[in-house]
Amino acid sequence: MSRRTDVQLIVFDVDGVMTDGRFTYSRDGKQLKTFGPDDADALGVLRAEVPVAFVSADRRGFAITERRIANDMGYDVSLVPGGERLAWIAARAPLERVAYMGDSFTDIPVLERVGVSITTADALPGVRRCASYVTKRRGGDRAVAEACFFLLADCLGHRRWAGIA
Amino acid sequence: MSRRTDVQLIVFDVDGVMTDGRFTYSRDGKQLKTFGPDDADALGVLRAEVPVAFVSADRRGFAITERRIANDMGYDVSLVPGGERLAWIAARAPLERVAYMGDSFTDIPVLERVGVSITTADALPGVRRCASYVTKRRGGDRAVAEACFFLLADCLGHRRWAGIA
Amino acid sequence: MSRRTDVQLIVFDVDGVMTDGRFTYSRDGKQLKTFGPDDADALGVLRAEVPVAFVSADRRGFAITERRIANDMGYDVSLVPGGERLAWIAARAPLERVAYMGDSFTDIPVLERVGVSITTADALPGVRRCASYVTKRRGGDRAVAEACFFLLADCLGHRRWAGIA
Amino acid sequence: MSRRTDVQLIVFDVDGVMTDGRFTYSRDGKQLKTFGPDDADALGVLRAEVPVAFVSADRRGFAITERRIANDMGYDVSLVPGGERLAWIAARAPLERVAYMGDSFTDIPVLERVGVSITTADALPGVRRCASYVTKRRGGDRAVAEACFFLLADCLGHRRWAGIA
Repeated sequence: MSRRTDVQLIVFDVDGVMTDGRFTYSRDGKQLKTFGPDDADALGVLRAEVPVAFVSADRRGFAITERRIANDMGYDVSLVPGGERLAWIAARAPLERVAYMGDSFTDIPVLERVGVSITTADALPGVRRCASYVTKRRGGDRAVAEACFFLLADCLGHRRWAGIA
Repeated sequence: MSRRTDVQLIVFDVDGVMTDGRFTYSRDGKQLKTFGPDDADALGVLRAEVPVAFVSADRRGFAITERRIANDMGYDVSLVPGGERLAWIAARAPLERVAYMGDSFTDIPVLERVGVSITTADALPGVRRCASYVTKRRGGDRAVAEACFFLLADCLGHRRWAGIA
Repeated sequence: MSRRTDVQLIVFDVDGVMTDGRFTYSRDGKQLKTFGPDDADALGVLRAEVPVAFVSADRRGFAITERRIANDMGYDVSLVPGGERLAWIAARAPLERVAYMGDSFTDIPVLERVGVSITTADALPGVRRCASYVTKRRGGDRAVAEACFFLLADCLGHRRWAGIA
Repeated sequence: MSRRTDVQLIVFDVDGVMTDGRFTYSRDGKQLKTFGPDDADALGVLRAEVPVAFVSADRRGFAITERRIANDMGYDVSLVPGGERLAWIAARAPLERVAYMGDSFTDIPVLERVGVSITTADALPGVRRCASYVTKRRGGDRAVAEACFFLLADCLGHRRWAGIA
């Protein structure tokens, strides 16, 4: 696992990580996504220390994602399919200095290569085995808050945040 | 249980299998259904190996079902009441060469006859007793992804997918 | 507990029993209620044996309740506040011949008086102690289906339905 | 913990306490919040004994909060960011005579100072350690009802409500 000064960039997947992974449909198509408590507040603490970016593979629901992540929370969020994520990340920072959090089996190639890999309690077993840290919380149920405090306390060395999550 | 070459057709029920089984109503009637993570990606792997079809008994919510299953995911989905499913399936493939996944007690006659029968963790006990495989996951919470990897690894012999779900 | 021939009327509360008890609000007020799987199908079996009625105390959300229970499922549903339920039921059948299912602490006076009293797994402990049968399922998660099969098998003597729920 | 006559004011956070803490977004932004069963009925019993007020830090979703808490339930609800809550409360009653219920790590400074501090089962561990009472229920799943009966029975001395929650 990376040491304190190693992490230069933290990248979060959105669906299943910031949300509970569910897509709610009406007869007009994809309509709603659900975001959880504590995550936005914890990210506010984390971003003061290291750059934070978001990626999503959901093209049809991207307008919803942008409303939460970009407009309301103020972060960059990019549409990056699973197969292009490793290259997208590598273009922005050395992989060994990146922390990445994702929940899908399509994230496995990324989780296996980055410096700090994080997944959620509800990811499939084969995904959880690839991660250096598995949150006790499910996506959309404070998993990102828990990951933020793990990164702050264990990777970035801010001991005052130890024990919160 | 069917061996590798036996499965010619895989049929999934929609409500309670691809969704959490819940119907959300407004004062104008049935409005929303909620689909879960990983299922669409895992089905994409499965459909490269065997034909996949969907059935639903929900007439009032069928327009919602079609938006997700047909328009956005690109699969055939048919409106087939519980009592007509066995005949509908038998008209498409020999029952012993069909894998079927359903969650309702009205699915019992189908689960008892097909070659590979799958149900969800949250189905009633009397339904779970009829299935050759019960997913560890609930409907809408990666139960279909788990079923896909079971079918790929255990029924179709693609060992690279063993252990994912 | 009532014997087979005793039950003349079965009354179900709606919110927290047929639904998960949650009310979803937009800025325009109460908008959505969520109903679960299996309950409507199991009620279809039960109503062939004994009259079934629904009561709700939710005035603001009653139009939503009517869409599901009356329009789509075809049952009578009445707006009856908690404090008036005992009298409303007593006017329709002898209390000892009524089965009632409710989940709220305001249902305690009814649960204590009817012949068969049923509540959900997620009701408060003081409510569960008053019920002759507590479902293993939460409201909106097949609790009504389980109650229907309990009534059919254990109270109405239809042994073919034993073991389903 | 405060004795019977000490509690002069009870303040509840809204998101994560009265709701499940989730924010549902459409492409037009924050749209929906979900409130749970029993809480409104239990608050009706509590408010007959002690003044009850609500605070929320969610500016974008405040119109939704007002519809439930103010319009439909009839309580005062104020927009008070986490950092201003201690001063806001202190201006209304001596802190040692206030009961406060919150679920976020931003509530820790308040939980550490008030006479009776309550949080939910699903709050982060570092929040739960600061509370004098942690509900067995999650926010939006009868946590407020449980807190009301705790306050009525254990803090206000109304023994008839002991054992309900």
